[in-house]
Amino acid sequence: MNSNQQHDSIRAVLWRGDRLRLLDQRKLPFVEDYVDCMNAADVAQAIRDLVVRGAPAIGISAAWGVVLAAQRGREEADAALPLLRAARPTAVNLMWALDRMGRRIAEGADVQGLEREAQQIQDEDLAANRHMGELGAALLGENTGVMTHCNTGSLATAGYGTALGVIRAGCSKGKIVRVFAGETRPWLQGARLTMWELMRDGIPATLVSDSAAAHLMKSGALQWVIVGADRIAANGDVANKIGTYQLAIVARHHGVKFMVVAPGSTVDMSTASGADIEIEMRDPEELLSHSGQRTVVDSALAWNPVFDVTPASLIDAIVTERGVIEKPDAKRMQALFA
Amino acid sequence: MNSNQQHDSIRAVLWRGDRLRLLDQRKLPFVEDYVDCMNAADVAQAIRDLVVRGAPAIGISAAWGVVLAAQRGREEADAALPLLRAARPTAVNLMWALDRMGRRIAEGADVQGLEREAQQIQDEDLAANRHMGELGAALLGENTGVMTHCNTGSLATAGYGTALGVIRAGCSKGKIVRVFAGETRPWLQGARLTMWELMRDGIPATLVSDSAAAHLMKSGALQWVIVGADRIAANGDVANKIGTYQLAIVARHHGVKFMVVAPGSTVDMSTASGADIEIEMRDPEELLSHSGQRTVVDSALAWNPVFDVTPASLIDAIVTERGVIEKPDAKRMQALFA
Repeated sequence: MNSNQQHDSIRAVLWRGDRLRLLDQRKLPFVEDYVDCMNAADVAQAIRDLVVRGAPAIGISAAWGVVLAAQRGREEADAALPLLRAARPTAVNLMWALDRMGRRIAEGADVQGLEREAQQIQDEDLAANRHMGELGAALLGENTGVMTHCNTGSLATAGYGTALGVIRAGCSKGKIVRVFAGETRPWLQGARLTMWELMRDGIPATLVSDSAAAHLMKSGALQWVIVGADRIAANGDVANKIGTYQLAIVARHHGVKFMVVAPGSTVDMSTASGADIEIEMRDPEELLSHSGQRTVVDSALAWNPVFDVTPASLIDAIVTERGVIEKPDAKRMQALFA
Repeated sequence: MNSNQQHDSIRAVLWRGDRLRLLDQRKLPFVEDYVDCMNAADVAQAIRDLVVRGAPAIGISAAWGVVLAAQRGREEADAALPLLRAARPTAVNLMWALDRMGRRIAEGADVQGLEREAQQIQDEDLAANRHMGELGAALLGENTGVMTHCNTGSLATAGYGTALGVIRAGCSKGKIVRVFAGETRPWLQGARLTMWELMRDGIPATLVSDSAAAHLMKSGALQWVIVGADRIAANGDVANKIGTYQLAIVARHHGVKFMVVAPGSTVDMSTASGADIEIEMRDPEELLSHSGQRTVVDSALAWNPVFDVTPASLIDAIVTERGVIEKPDAKRMQALFA
């Protein structure tokens, strides 16, 4: 199996000229089905329902949603911006992509101009991921064991991935010799999506329950935890999938290093710190049922925040396509993202 | 609903004179089904297959298994001891109960004598739980929020529970005002069993994913994490359900206190430290499927240790029926369990 061919073959967001075709990530890994979005409302719905997920992939999809709207006229395009913006609250790439499309609309871009802009957002993301893969892998020593959380691969981006891009690069250079994926409750992005991507690449990976991370670290198997981000605040605090904060605490406890990999579109310098980031709460049913079968008694309550905030103080390196910020803080963030 | 009546009505281990009837915990909370064990091999199988689980309940079940064997003769009873001992490796209550039954056999006890011994093991466990409930609740302040892990209630014991007994006592005294249960992957004891027990008691409880604990602690909602144990070493290290160690680390990080509740039968003074405790590895399939549906690609590997070790240094109090050990260490353990 040629690993480069394999991972390049996964595309979650496909522009088809008159529609946006999204790989339905709710059905993976066993069913490869697609949802065709014919207008911006369809795209917003697909983002809300997790047909497409992953901060960069959400931003790219929203950009294409604006193009679909613009094909129906300027009024539709103007209306699409707030509609798409409201689809999910935490990942700032969504707002960033819509701001970018909005600026082009304000400048009077025609449909072809908007289409070029969306394509550029998508192409830049892929290029950023390739570059971050190199930058992140350069931080790793030889014989490194890594753990990742959620899915940050081709499915979550325009391709290659953020944290998973670094893992791909580190594996292809022979630096990474052990890969563990946390299953990532409640939606099992790690179990369903990351394991699928890694197996397709021929990268041997081992699934662990989210709560086994500390026990794994105690064994000495891990040198780095490598994760993505949904929003990075001006002081280097990182919002990411629920469980990331917990991983960062136990990593520090064991002297395991912690790397966040995300494109510049994830950095939100207008958010001072993690305390200012809205954390999305999703349906408690995501915890109360498994694979459509209820597992908890009917009257039960559940608390289902799907993101948390890892303070900059627990992060050893933030890797972006603009460069690496070691021991991030407001000053170092400012130096790269002023 | 009268909460005392409710929780007293759950019995996981039922002696029926010629058989041991076990509530099938694999099917809870939606199906209340029983497995009848006619001999020691049936009991060993039921322990292995998690029909019955929870360290004290395993010990009690094994004692009854010896009685079933003794009904067929002394030779059968002698053979039952190693058979039952091998059923699961980590919970020491199993070895403790078998040692106790073995001593009675060696003393020449008849079937009635062994039956009385098994009944006494069961009755002592219930009494220990009631007493530990009082001792543990006395450690709590007013307006306390607690989180627990796995299931340590009536289902895991002769009744009332260990950690869940303290939570029951703390709730009935009005000291505990918020209860959170971690779902406890991969077997979902928290989601399926603990939520069921708490709802039956009329104790409002909220389910959270295991990886949301740190985010929950950051909110200030928790003052104590209260868990059970499968084995406590001579230096106060505690083996318990996978994820316990991770919870202890994040609790310490947030200044949330950490209590372990277990009867003396869980203490193993012949094990010097947690490093000497055998950690059971179970079938990777427990992580690769959900509710019988495969969720991970076929070629995937999984690592499924079902216990971990929390060092004594991360524990604020070990509560046993003999008394409370605050800031446990070898010396304090020795003072109570010499």
